Amino acid sequence: MPAAPDLFSKVMALAKRRGFLWPSYEIYGGVAGFYDYGPMGSRLKNALEALWRRYYVAGEGFAELAAPVIAPEAVFKASGHLEKFSDIMVECTKCGEAFRADHLLLELFPDETPPATLDDTARWIKERKVRCPNDKAELSEPYPFNLMFRTFIGPGIKRTGYLRPETAQSMFLDFGMLYRHFREKLPFGAVQIGRGFRNEIAPRQGIIRLREFNMAEAEVFFDPQKKASHPRFGQVAGLKLHLVPNEGPEVDMTLGEAVAGKVMAHESIAYFVGITAKFLLEAGVNPAKLRFRQHAKDEMAHYAADCWDAEVELSFGWTECVGIADRTCYDLEAHMKASGADLRAYTRFDEPKTVEKMVVAPVHNVLGPRYKKDAKLIATALEATDACTLEGREFAEVELSGKKVRVEKDCYTIKKVSDTVNGVWFTPHVIEPSYGIDRILYTILEHSYTEMVKEGEPYTVLKLRPSIAPIQAGVFPLTGKDELVAVAEDIERRLREAGITTYMDASDSIGRRYARMDEVGTPFCITVDFDGLRDGTVTIRDRDSTKQIRVPSEGIAGTVGELLAGLQSLF
Amino acid sequence: MPAAPDLFSKVMALAKRRGFLWPSYEIYGGVAGFYDYGPMGSRLKNALEALWRRYYVAGEGFAELAAPVIAPEAVFKASGHLEKFSDIMVECTKCGEAFRADHLLLELFPDETPPATLDDTARWIKERKVRCPNDKAELSEPYPFNLMFRTFIGPGIKRTGYLRPETAQSMFLDFGMLYRHFREKLPFGAVQIGRGFRNEIAPRQGIIRLREFNMAEAEVFFDPQKKASHPRFGQVAGLKLHLVPNEGPEVDMTLGEAVAGKVMAHESIAYFVGITAKFLLEAGVNPAKLRFRQHAKDEMAHYAADCWDAEVELSFGWTECVGIADRTCYDLEAHMKASGADLRAYTRFDEPKTVEKMVVAPVHNVLGPRYKKDAKLIATALEATDACTLEGREFAEVELSGKKVRVEKDCYTIKKVSDTVNGVWFTPHVIEPSYGIDRILYTILEHSYTEMVKEGEPYTVLKLRPSIAPIQAGVFPLTGKDELVAVAEDIERRLREAGITTYMDASDSIGRRYARMDEVGTPFCITVDFDGLRDGTVTIRDRDSTKQIRVPSEGIAGTVGELLAGLQSLF
Repeated sequence: MPAAPDLFSKVMALAKRRGFLWPSYEIYGGVAGFYDYGPMGSRLKNALEALWRRYYVAGEGFAELAAPVIAPEAVFKASGHLEKFSDIMVECTKCGEAFRADHLLLELFPDETPPATLDDTARWIKERKVRCPNDKAELSEPYPFNLMFRTFIGPGIKRTGYLRPETAQSMFLDFGMLYRHFREKLPFGAVQIGRGFRNEIAPRQGIIRLREFNMAEAEVFFDPQKKASHPRFGQVAGLKLHLVPNEGPEVDMTLGEAVAGKVMAHESIAYFVGITAKFLLEAGVNPAKLRFRQHAKDEMAHYAADCWDAEVELSFGWTECVGIADRTCYDLEAHMKASGADLRAYTRFDEPKTVEKMVVAPVHNVLGPRYKKDAKLIATALEATDACTLEGREFAEVELSGKKVRVEKDCYTIKKVSDTVNGVWFTPHVIEPSYGIDRILYTILEHSYTEMVKEGEPYTVLKLRPSIAPIQAGVFPLTGKDELVAVAEDIERRLREAGITTYMDASDSIGRRYARMDEVGTPFCITVDFDGLRDGTVTIRDRDSTKQIRVPSEGIAGTVGELLAGLQSLF
Repeated sequence: MPAAPDLFSKVMALAKRRGFLWPSYEIYGGVAGFYDYGPMGSRLKNALEALWRRYYVAGEGFAELAAPVIAPEAVFKASGHLEKFSDIMVECTKCGEAFRADHLLLELFPDETPPATLDDTARWIKERKVRCPNDKAELSEPYPFNLMFRTFIGPGIKRTGYLRPETAQSMFLDFGMLYRHFREKLPFGAVQIGRGFRNEIAPRQGIIRLREFNMAEAEVFFDPQKKASHPRFGQVAGLKLHLVPNEGPEVDMTLGEAVAGKVMAHESIAYFVGITAKFLLEAGVNPAKLRFRQHAKDEMAHYAADCWDAEVELSFGWTECVGIADRTCYDLEAHMKASGADLRAYTRFDEPKTVEKMVVAPVHNVLGPRYKKDAKLIATALEATDACTLEGREFAEVELSGKKVRVEKDCYTIKKVSDTVNGVWFTPHVIEPSYGIDRILYTILEHSYTEMVKEGEPYTVLKLRPSIAPIQAGVFPLTGKDELVAVAEDIERRLREAGITTYMDASDSIGRRYARMDEVGTPFCITVDFDGLRDGTVTIRDRDSTKQIRVPSEGIAGTVGELLAGLQSLF
């Protein structure tokens, strides 16, 4: 007897059967890591994106941008993605198959943490005599594989371009335009909703690890002097969440307590943790299966000083679906350095003022013995380094005659100094809430998936929130009789004009039509029958209770609208 | 004295200054063919897309899909893009610069139609001794340059992928899923809104010819027996449009007359011409600057049997912004042949029926003398050809021992034959309205751009339709006084909650704030002043008349809502 399909398989089967999503290019054998959203899936995705805009554009007042997905090499050279956005791979020297090294080693040594660097990977493979799982032949030296899709812009191969791995970079490049749009007042935010790309070596788990994915990101620019407090923190301070800090035990606490107890670094990152929790719960994530986990130091992306992930519990484990990162001034500094453009903000004081700033101070008596004749040049380079780029890092990097030199933490201190100025130029810090729309969408499907039994028969209901259901009201004429169909069509049109998403279905028995609507999560179904033709009524059936009531067809759009908004409860 | 800037330059300068759009990657020197939409531009783009969904999703009942932009090579091999989607290029043998051959030749010989084939281009260059415009050196042989961006999926170079040049292909590949979603009843349609890519040799004119562009496409699947009539044609039949047929003179006529007079092939293509005209006019295209032009036979894309372009008159000439093509069964047939998947639809008859179908009949007494021993094989291959693939074409192509052979039209006829059947499998035909969102957006900016003079000072107003304006209401406290700001913030919040897009501005004089709002096309501005604080009123200023009236602040959201919808006219 074959094993019963697991929840993931059942959800994915329903998703395909009912037009939510399916693997792309199936008629050509498929390509791993690409999915199509079908009629139901794209409505659900649009609803999630509309909800996200309600939080971040209407709610926060952030400005939406729409930039290209192709960017020239210079952008990712500056951002660090060209150098650091890669996985370590090994290939079989005989069969040629390529493996992601950490995945291969984790499979062989499931109880250990696989190595993260090229050197450690090479050592493991050598010392433990790891061989190709297919043919036991020797493996190649491990090498880094950049995860960006590469292409060429224009004819020839002179101009390299990459597909963006995140939407964020354009918002950094456009900082100057945004700064003017917001009339030079911080904090402000920019958002983008769109595609991101990651040329995964081993895509897997449906839409959880895609090569082309949908993301919604906000880049919120702060004066670093002021990020400790957030003007609207009060709105989320009382929200109690399950937190997994990178040190100490897991804990349920309010965001107010988290900031006060230094579990979270400051109000600005905690505020967006709060907004994220509210969004996910409103979208339909099960609150018992939501936690926020802080990244360990060695797990953070190359640009982040602190990061909290919203993780959801799925049938295959806890999975990240939103990351809220403090990118500090990393990106703006990097693009300023690479492009020469000025991406700073200015504050003019009412009158000249003594200000404190953080500077990097070389420790000469450590530098001298360690660097001998280069010590002076290194000291000068350290002094010219923006102190904020060193926040949360273990060493500095300076250039010495064109070469990068790693300078350990004991060679410098970061200290506060005073200065009298009329105003101040500074590089804003960035807090970035970055949402994986596909992962959130899958989570909602899985958390809504409910198996029930009625009259001895098993059936499936997708208990989606009415506000995001792809179909909010099914409309059925009881039979295909013309007079029933005409009334049903009129009702369907009236609902549609009221902004309610509908689906008209006249085929098969009413029971089968209800079952189809239950499977796509339609909260209400309206049936036009012969009794109703006589007395001007229709029945409304509630998905979750399966109860039916009879209401006048006259005000049907209003009735359904109130049911959807939760303003009326008839069942 | 420098020449006055032309309208295009003025519109683009405003677009950049006011946050509509600007060239991407400017801080890195820019890359031709890529633009960012800023805070105003992305709102305008979202509004256009929402309007488009109102026509095609809510209005037509079509299903929206969201498929990846990366597709494997097999898709474009089947679709014909790999072979035919290219421009002819030449390069200088000395300086290496690459030119699009038709552009180069048109510049040199502006009064002639430049050659369209590789051979003709080579002949022109040789006979006319065309040389590099930079250094007069010899040019290379002309060669075709495929316009798709290429990349590799996964590690290594084993799996080639391309960025889609149109969103259409996924909707053909998903025909089976769509057919089931629509409960196996034609006609139905699928739509996609998203990015398309075309690796232009010479991008130009701002967002008119981009390398990465935004499109909205519908693929409408018809039973070819029934495409001559369209169920909703009556809704557009009376619409009078300016038509430019590929034969005969330009003419103003209704769509009903165009179909009756055979200016347009059938109601189905005419219906979508009508829907397109309605959409463009509602979006704000100037009706005097809109025409529909039929493609000449040799101008049509490789997949189209008939095509009408919606063209708009811009400062640099008539420009295509929508194409409405009859793609016949070309794409579904091509993918069936290449993949082996069945992409047909079935009609079961109530009782067995004698049906007529179109078949390809070889003309043996032409084939015999022309092809000698191969004549029989070619006849068999012609008989196996689907007649619909030859519609509107000048020759057939058949395979003979693995080689493609061109068979002229005199070798076959297409004729009707009768058959008794229980039902019929057929390959649906596709009508495709394909919208260039960027071009429509630019058109609306240019057609709305209005220069005015007030009190001797010139100023600019963007007369956008209120329904698509990025900001529908500006809200100004007269001064920065706290009590004024508090009331203005309350009004702004109420408007926002009523779904009205707002912008709060408290800096500079009221005149400068009005001017900024005029430049982004904000139809109404609300000012809170000290009189209003006393008597609970605000002023509303109308963009186009510049008149101001005083209204109670109490019902302000309702008042502005009615003004925007044109239900009230206070000015």
